[in-house]
Amino acid sequence: MTRIGKLVVIGVGLIGGSLALALKRQGLVGHVCGIGRSRSNLDDALRLGVLDSATADYAEALSGADVVLVATPVAQMPAVFAALAHGVSQSTIITDGGSTKQDVIAAARAALGPRFTRFVPGHPIAGTEHAGAAAAFADLFAKRKVVLAPETETDPEATAIVKAMWEATGATVSAMSATEHDRIFAAVSHLPHLLAFALVEELALRPDRADFFRFAAGGFRDFTRIASSSPEMWRDIAIANRSALLDELRGYRERIERLEALLAAGDADGLWNVFTTARAARNAWLADQA
Amino acid sequence: MTRIGKLVVIGVGLIGGSLALALKRQGLVGHVCGIGRSRSNLDDALRLGVLDSATADYAEALSGADVVLVATPVAQMPAVFAALAHGVSQSTIITDGGSTKQDVIAAARAALGPRFTRFVPGHPIAGTEHAGAAAAFADLFAKRKVVLAPETETDPEATAIVKAMWEATGATVSAMSATEHDRIFAAVSHLPHLLAFALVEELALRPDRADFFRFAAGGFRDFTRIASSSPEMWRDIAIANRSALLDELRGYRERIERLEALLAAGDADGLWNVFTTARAARNAWLADQA
Repeated sequence: MTRIGKLVVIGVGLIGGSLALALKRQGLVGHVCGIGRSRSNLDDALRLGVLDSATADYAEALSGADVVLVATPVAQMPAVFAALAHGVSQSTIITDGGSTKQDVIAAARAALGPRFTRFVPGHPIAGTEHAGAAAAFADLFAKRKVVLAPETETDPEATAIVKAMWEATGATVSAMSATEHDRIFAAVSHLPHLLAFALVEELALRPDRADFFRFAAGGFRDFTRIASSSPEMWRDIAIANRSALLDELRGYRERIERLEALLAAGDADGLWNVFTTARAARNAWLADQA
Repeated sequence: MTRIGKLVVIGVGLIGGSLALALKRQGLVGHVCGIGRSRSNLDDALRLGVLDSATADYAEALSGADVVLVATPVAQMPAVFAALAHGVSQSTIITDGGSTKQDVIAAARAALGPRFTRFVPGHPIAGTEHAGAAAAFADLFAKRKVVLAPETETDPEATAIVKAMWEATGATVSAMSATEHDRIFAAVSHLPHLLAFALVEELALRPDRADFFRFAAGGFRDFTRIASSSPEMWRDIAIANRSALLDELRGYRERIERLEALLAAGDADGLWNVFTTARAARNAWLADQA
């Protein structure tokens, strides 16, 4: 890819910080400037070499920027796009790292005006349960997937540059519509997060919770890992993608009701069929990943 | 602990095999004899040094046995106890590795007659999603917990020997009633397994499942790891502990319904509260484990 002279990261957390580190390691970026809400997080990012400069001033940050990555929680993106609309030049490419796409695109379209053609909606399918610049690492995107969801107006040159940028981190990039994206990630990402949060909350609210947590072991730890994720980030995702997520929650609740019926009836064969179908599908999926 | 001259393992899988390997590594067992349904699994166990001998003949296996571990799926235990009742001497200690305790104890009480006092109900809280003798390893129980659920009739000397045996594998042993055990593990183990199986099954039954599985990533992988577990083992556990498990499933379904209501209302603060409570509880639990 062509070297990026100046990258601006708005929201210097796990995603934005790891992109900066990945590009820096390969000498593919000249200067990384960060904008963020938390001064202590920006100080961490400067100290750890994630950023070369940090500012609260959009005009200063955007001056000479080649690429801007918006990597805040999605509910903050409308305000970020509004701030960008005034200072960004037509030559600057804007992209984002949001886990939902229809709401982000609508916000960008509403705020960016003629600059919307230079906005490439994106979603790196990577993350851990840890947040903040200190959690960033250069290998986060290696062998991961990045989805781009360009609209009909999106400048193909801008899309190509953003694609090359993510590929340089070691990721595989594919494209799909925003609707398709939101439907798929409601099922394979947003729903499991809600389910994990729900299980831990249910135990946490019990007066005798200590008796339960004391014997929770490896299965529980892995099942609930994503319940250590950022409440703010997941609140925003849930609200942003609530229509698709509600469909998934309803479908899942119906599965639970069916398990209740099988269990109440003592239907061992019915349970075995559910477990066998699930195990075979998961093992086939794992084999495909290898 | 006193060395075990002869250990008989009935059901030579991950649990039984790993116990044999752990005791052998420390020179704490003289001879391990296995009984199992699958000849090829017993051959694996002999080849891997998990067993010193294998047989289908209970009388041969039980001759001179100091300790018998029953580590089959729980639904097979009534038949195993019936077979043991005829051949086991009063000096032999019997214990089990079942994930449910009330049903196992009832089966042992019904079958073992006067030998029931030498039966120590147990549950090593360890496992992986892999099954069979080939999955066994000597460190499986290191830093794990083992629960014993002795009844009022249980011979305290037998309990002490089983406790010492598990401690020799590196596990911490505690005791509780069978009722308490089944209530706790319905919540922290059996429920998450059902929830993980249900999520994968739901996706697996979709005609367009490939679109979903293609973008499933790390969060999904960990959330569903336990859905690669043995369908037979989990069918038996679900049926054996169905009363406590139904209570948990109902409680969890009500949590899901509450999430649906919050989401339908667009209640961002309500969602944030759920996620924050869950995250704080999980992180406190993790800190306690460290």
